[in-house]
Amino acid sequence: MGVNSNRVEHFSDATNFETTVTICSAEETPPLEVHKVCLPPQKTTLQKLRHRLSEIFFPDDPLHRFKNQTWLKKFLLGLQFFFPVFQWGPNYTLQLLRSDVISGLTIASLAIPQGISYAKLANLPPIIGLYSSFVPPLIYSVLGSSRHIGVGPVSIASLVMGTMLSETVSYTEQPILYLQLAFTATFFAGVFQASLGLLRLGFVIDFLSKATLVGFMAGAAVIVSLQQLKGLLGIVHFTTKMQIIPVLSSVFSHRNEWSWQTIVMGISFLTFLLAARQISMRKPKLFWISAAAPLTSVILSTLIMYLLRSKAHEIPTIGNLPKGLNPPSSNMLYFHGTYLGLALKTGLVTGILALTEGIAVGRTFAALKNYQVDGNKEMMAIGLMNMAGSCSSCYITTGSFSRSAVNYNAGAQTIVSNIIMSSAVLVTLLFLMPLFTYTPNFILAAIIITAVIGLIDYQAAFRLWKVDKLDFLACLCSFLGVLFISVPLGLAIAVGVSVFKILLHVTRPNTTVLGNIPGTQIYQNLSRYREALRVPSFLIVAVESPFFFANSTYIQERILRWVREEEERIEANNESMMKCIILDMTAVTAIDTSGIDTICELRKMLEKRSLQFVLANPVGNVMEKLHQSNALESFGLNGLYLTVGEAVADISSPWKAQP
Amino acid sequence: MGVNSNRVEHFSDATNFETTVTICSAEETPPLEVHKVCLPPQKTTLQKLRHRLSEIFFPDDPLHRFKNQTWLKKFLLGLQFFFPVFQWGPNYTLQLLRSDVISGLTIASLAIPQGISYAKLANLPPIIGLYSSFVPPLIYSVLGSSRHIGVGPVSIASLVMGTMLSETVSYTEQPILYLQLAFTATFFAGVFQASLGLLRLGFVIDFLSKATLVGFMAGAAVIVSLQQLKGLLGIVHFTTKMQIIPVLSSVFSHRNEWSWQTIVMGISFLTFLLAARQISMRKPKLFWISAAAPLTSVILSTLIMYLLRSKAHEIPTIGNLPKGLNPPSSNMLYFHGTYLGLALKTGLVTGILALTEGIAVGRTFAALKNYQVDGNKEMMAIGLMNMAGSCSSCYITTGSFSRSAVNYNAGAQTIVSNIIMSSAVLVTLLFLMPLFTYTPNFILAAIIITAVIGLIDYQAAFRLWKVDKLDFLACLCSFLGVLFISVPLGLAIAVGVSVFKILLHVTRPNTTVLGNIPGTQIYQNLSRYREALRVPSFLIVAVESPFFFANSTYIQERILRWVREEEERIEANNESMMKCIILDMTAVTAIDTSGIDTICELRKMLEKRSLQFVLANPVGNVMEKLHQSNALESFGLNGLYLTVGEAVADISSPWKAQP
Repeated sequence: MGVNSNRVEHFSDATNFETTVTICSAEETPPLEVHKVCLPPQKTTLQKLRHRLSEIFFPDDPLHRFKNQTWLKKFLLGLQFFFPVFQWGPNYTLQLLRSDVISGLTIASLAIPQGISYAKLANLPPIIGLYSSFVPPLIYSVLGSSRHIGVGPVSIASLVMGTMLSETVSYTEQPILYLQLAFTATFFAGVFQASLGLLRLGFVIDFLSKATLVGFMAGAAVIVSLQQLKGLLGIVHFTTKMQIIPVLSSVFSHRNEWSWQTIVMGISFLTFLLAARQISMRKPKLFWISAAAPLTSVILSTLIMYLLRSKAHEIPTIGNLPKGLNPPSSNMLYFHGTYLGLALKTGLVTGILALTEGIAVGRTFAALKNYQVDGNKEMMAIGLMNMAGSCSSCYITTGSFSRSAVNYNAGAQTIVSNIIMSSAVLVTLLFLMPLFTYTPNFILAAIIITAVIGLIDYQAAFRLWKVDKLDFLACLCSFLGVLFISVPLGLAIAVGVSVFKILLHVTRPNTTVLGNIPGTQIYQNLSRYREALRVPSFLIVAVESPFFFANSTYIQERILRWVREEEERIEANNESMMKCIILDMTAVTAIDTSGIDTICELRKMLEKRSLQFVLANPVGNVMEKLHQSNALESFGLNGLYLTVGEAVADISSPWKAQP
Repeated sequence: MGVNSNRVEHFSDATNFETTVTICSAEETPPLEVHKVCLPPQKTTLQKLRHRLSEIFFPDDPLHRFKNQTWLKKFLLGLQFFFPVFQWGPNYTLQLLRSDVISGLTIASLAIPQGISYAKLANLPPIIGLYSSFVPPLIYSVLGSSRHIGVGPVSIASLVMGTMLSETVSYTEQPILYLQLAFTATFFAGVFQASLGLLRLGFVIDFLSKATLVGFMAGAAVIVSLQQLKGLLGIVHFTTKMQIIPVLSSVFSHRNEWSWQTIVMGISFLTFLLAARQISMRKPKLFWISAAAPLTSVILSTLIMYLLRSKAHEIPTIGNLPKGLNPPSSNMLYFHGTYLGLALKTGLVTGILALTEGIAVGRTFAALKNYQVDGNKEMMAIGLMNMAGSCSSCYITTGSFSRSAVNYNAGAQTIVSNIIMSSAVLVTLLFLMPLFTYTPNFILAAIIITAVIGLIDYQAAFRLWKVDKLDFLACLCSFLGVLFISVPLGLAIAVGVSVFKILLHVTRPNTTVLGNIPGTQIYQNLSRYREALRVPSFLIVAVESPFFFANSTYIQERILRWVREEEERIEANNESMMKCIILDMTAVTAIDTSGIDTICELRKMLEKRSLQFVLANPVGNVMEKLHQSNALESFGLNGLYLTVGEAVADISSPWKAQP
C-alpha cells in the first residue's frame, strides 16, 4: 500500500474485507521521461548537395510518373510531357469542340481590336498586333499546359516595350530600325523565358510578389490611361516620356490641339465600353457583353467615320493595313551594332513581365478548375512561342488576364479555343483588312483605357493595408515608382522592398518569454496567453527566426536585456532568484557560424553571472551544426533537451530533492 | 465507486472494513483539454510601429539606467554616457596607472614602426602615420568605451585608401592633391561612421559576417604582402594595380631591378620578425618579444644603414622627416571639384572597413573581460576621432587587432594605455625624428608583411568548411574577389553571397513529416527520431521558415508532394486511409498575404480530395494576420489548434466513437 505508487492493485470482493488499495491523487502525474536529442541521419556532403539541388530545382519531383513503367510508356509519357497536345488530343470530343468554338469566337472578337490597340501602345504598326494574335496561340496550344489561357499581346508588356525602345530610337524617324529592335527584343525575351524554364529557375519570378504586382500594374495602368488622352483628345504633339508629371503637363499645355469632335465621340464610346464592362462585372452571366463591346465599338466607329469621311478629315484613323499572313521576319533580327544592349535590356524586362502575367494567369485558372500547371514547362512554352513569334512578325505575347477571363467565362474547355481564335484572326487577315481603313484612333484609345482600368485593383490594395502593412508599403513603392520614376525602375524598387522585407524579418526577429499553461506541458508566450504562468527560477526565451550573422548581435543583446528586466522584476516582487535560462530553439530554423559563436558567448557570459544556460528542441540541421562545431562540449550533460518541459522538470528535480 | 473517476476517496482505518476505493490504471490519462488559440493583445498601428522602431534602433534599451533617478543623477549619467571618461576617470588608481604605463609603452614601440609603414602602404608621407598615432587615440580615450583597444592606422584601411585614390590620382605626380583627397576621404569616413552611430544604424555592419571578413582579410593580406615585394626586392618600377596577376607579373618582369643587398637584408630581418611572432604565439607570456621586435629591427637596420651610408647609396630610405606636432589640415579639405566623388567613395569604403574592425576589436576584448561595449556609441567615437583627425593631418584610424592584442596581453586596464602611447609618439615627434633618416624601406616592408600575415586565418576557414559550407563559400568568394577583381568589389561580392544565403534559406525552406513519440505529446521529425511513429490517418507536416511570397509556391508544391507520396505509401502498405493533414506552424515565424492565399488555396485543393486541413500552433503575428484576413472563416471550428497533440486527439475522437 504505497501512497506514492500508481500501480493497479487487485480488488477482491466486498465479502473478503481484505483489500489493497491505491490512492491516486489528481495532482500526481507519471514521472517525466527525459528523451535524448538526436542528430539527423548522417549524410555526406555530396548527398546533402544532391538533396539541396533537387529541392531547389525539382521540388515537385516531375519524374515520379516515370517510375516503374515500360520503355514504350516512358516514351509516350515523355512525349506528353514535352508536347501536352498528345495528352488532351486523343481524348478530344465534339462536345468539347462546341464549347471551344463558342469561347474561341468570343475571344477573337476581343483579340482583334485589342491586338490593333496594343500594337499602337508599343508604337508598332497595328497589323503587328493582329499577326501576334495568329502565330503565338498556335505554338502555345502545342506546347502549353493551361486549358483556359488566352494568348496574345498584353497591355503592360506592350507599354514597357514601347517606352524602353522609344527612349533611344524614335519610331517616327526610324521605323525600320524600331521594328527590328522590337522583334529582336521579343526574340531575346523568348530566349530568356525558355532558359528560365529549362534551367528550372522559375522561382525567380516568385520574387515579384502579388503585393508588388498590384502596385506595379495599377501604376502602369494609370500611365497607360493618361497616355491615351493623346488619342482621346486628338492631340498631335505629345511627350514620349512615361512619367505622370510630363504626361499631365503635356496634356494641358497642348490644350489648343484638343479637337471637340474627337473628344465627343471618344468620350461617348469610352462611356459605352465602361458601361458594358460594369454590366458584365455585376452579372457574370452577361460576360459576352463586355467581350463583344470592343468589336462593336470598332465597327460602329468605323461606320461613322466612313459616313463622315468627307467632313472629318482631321480625325486620325488607322489607315491602310496590308492583307495577308505574317511575313517571315528572321532577317530583321538585329544581332550586332550599337543598339544590341537596348534590345537585350528591353527583352529582359518585357520577358519577365510577360512571364509573370502568363504564369499567374495559368495558375489562377488551374486552381479554379483543380488541375496542375507546371511553372517551368509553361515558361518554356511561352519562351518558345515568343522566339517563333519574333521570326514571324510578332512582338511579345503571353497569357492575358482579360482575354483568359473571357475565355473561361465563355466556357472554354481546352486550349483549342485559342486555335479557333487564331483561325478567326486568320480570316480577318486574309479578307477583312480593308474594313479597318477608317477605324479612328480614338476608339483604340478608348479600348485600351477600358482594358487597363481593370488592372487598378484598389480592393486588393485595401486588403493589403488591413492584413500586412509591409506588403502595402511594397505595393505603394512600386505604384509611386512607376508613376514618378520609370516602369523598369519602379519594378526594381518593388522587388527591392520585398527583399528588404525578408531581410528585416531576419535581422530583427521576434523574441518572447514563455510561460507554462498549468496542467500541461505546453509553453506559450506570456503576453499572449493569460493562463500561462511564469516558472519560478526559470527564464524561458524563444527566438523566432534563424540565428544568422545578420541578427546574432541583436539576439544576444535582446536576451541579455530580457535577463536584466527579469532580474529587476524579481527584485521588485521579491520572488525566488533566477537560476536557469532556457532557450527554446523550435523556431530557430537555421544557424551559421556567427550564431554558434553567439550561443557560446552567451553561455560564458551567463556562467559568469552564475546562471545556467540550456537549449531546448533544436531542429535537425541546427543540431548538426552545433555538433560539428563542438559547441555542445561546453554545455556539458545538462545543456540540451528535447522539450522545454523536460528541461524544466529535469533541471528543477535536484532542487526539489534538497528542501 | 466510479471506475473512470480520479477523485481521492477517503480511506478509513483497517478495523472498519468499510472502504471506498478508486481504481486507477496507469494507462488512463486525464482527458486531453483542448485549449483555445489566442490572438495576441490588440495594438494600434501606431503602437506596433513604435514597438518595431524601438526594437530596430534601441534593442538594448539604453535609457533604462535613467529611470527613477533625480535630475542631477540623470545629468551625470548623461555626461558619462556621452563621455565615458567621466565614468572611469573618478575611479582611477595608481595601480591601474602602472599597468597602463607598461602596456602603453609596449604598444608605442609597435605604433611607431607600424605608423610609418602603414602610411607608406597608403602612399602617404610616413610622418602622417605618426601624426595618426598621436591625435586620434587622445580623442578616442575621451569618447570611447572599450578598455583594451589600441587605436591607430590599420593595414587594410590604409591599403584600400591607397588603392582607391591611386586609381585616379598619382601620388608621385600630384602629391598635394593626393594628400588633400586622403584627408577629405578621412573626413567623409568620419562623418559616415558618426552618422551610423547617431542614427543607430549599427546593424548595417552586421552584414559583414565573420565568415566574409575571414576571406576578405586573407585576400587583402595576400595582396599587401605581394605588394611589399617591391620594397623587399628593391624594385623601382612597380604596378599600381592591386590584383594578384598584375602584381606577380610586375615582380617577375622587373627581375633586373632586384637588388641583392636589399634582398639579403630584407629577408634576414623578415625572418627575425616572423620568428619573434612565432615565439610569442607559442608562449603568450613572451608577448613583449613580438611587440619589441619591430622597433628593434628599425633601430638595427637604421644603424646598419648609417654605418654603410657611404657604400649603399641605392637602397632607398625614408629620408628626412619633419619634426614637430601635427600641423592643422582643415584648409586642405577638398569639398568641391572633380575629385569630390572619389573622396566620397573612398571615405565610404574605408569608413565601413575601419568601423568593422574597430567594433569587432572592441567587442572581442569586452567579451573576454566581461563588460559591455555599446556598438552605436563606439561608432560615434570612431567617427568623431576620424573627423578630428582629418583636421590635424591624420588619415583614417581605428582600433587595430594587432595593437589591441598586444595592449591586452601587456596588461592594459583602461584606455589610458592609449594616452601613454600618444605621449610616447609625441616625444618621438618632438625629438626623435632625425633618427629615422636612414631607416631603409625594406624594413618597413618586412614589418608590414609580418603584421598582415596574422590576418590569414586558415584555421577559421577550415572550421567554416567543417561547420557551414555556405559560410565557407562566402569566405571563398570574398577571398577570390579581392585577389582577382578588386578590394571594394570583393567586399561587395561577399556581402552579396551572405544576403543570398539568407534568401536561399527563406526561398527553399525545410519541410518535414512529424510522428509521435509514443507515450508523450511530443511530435518530432520521423526521419530523425527512430522512436517517432506515424499517426494513422494523419499526415503531420512542419514547415521551417516564414511563409512569404518567395516560398509560398514552393511550400504548396512540396506539401502536395508529401500528400501524394504518403498516399502511395499507404496504398503500398495497405494501411488506413489518410483523412486529415495537420500543418505544424510553430516554426512559421511570419506570414504575408501571399502565404495566406496559399494556405487558403491548399485548403480548397485538399477539400476537393476529401482531406481535412488543419493548422496547429501559429505564432502571435501569424495568428493576427490570419484573423485579419478572414482566412480562418473557411477553416471553420475545427481548423486551428494550440498543439499538434490536441489536434490529433480532438479530430480522431469522433472517429473512435464510431466503431
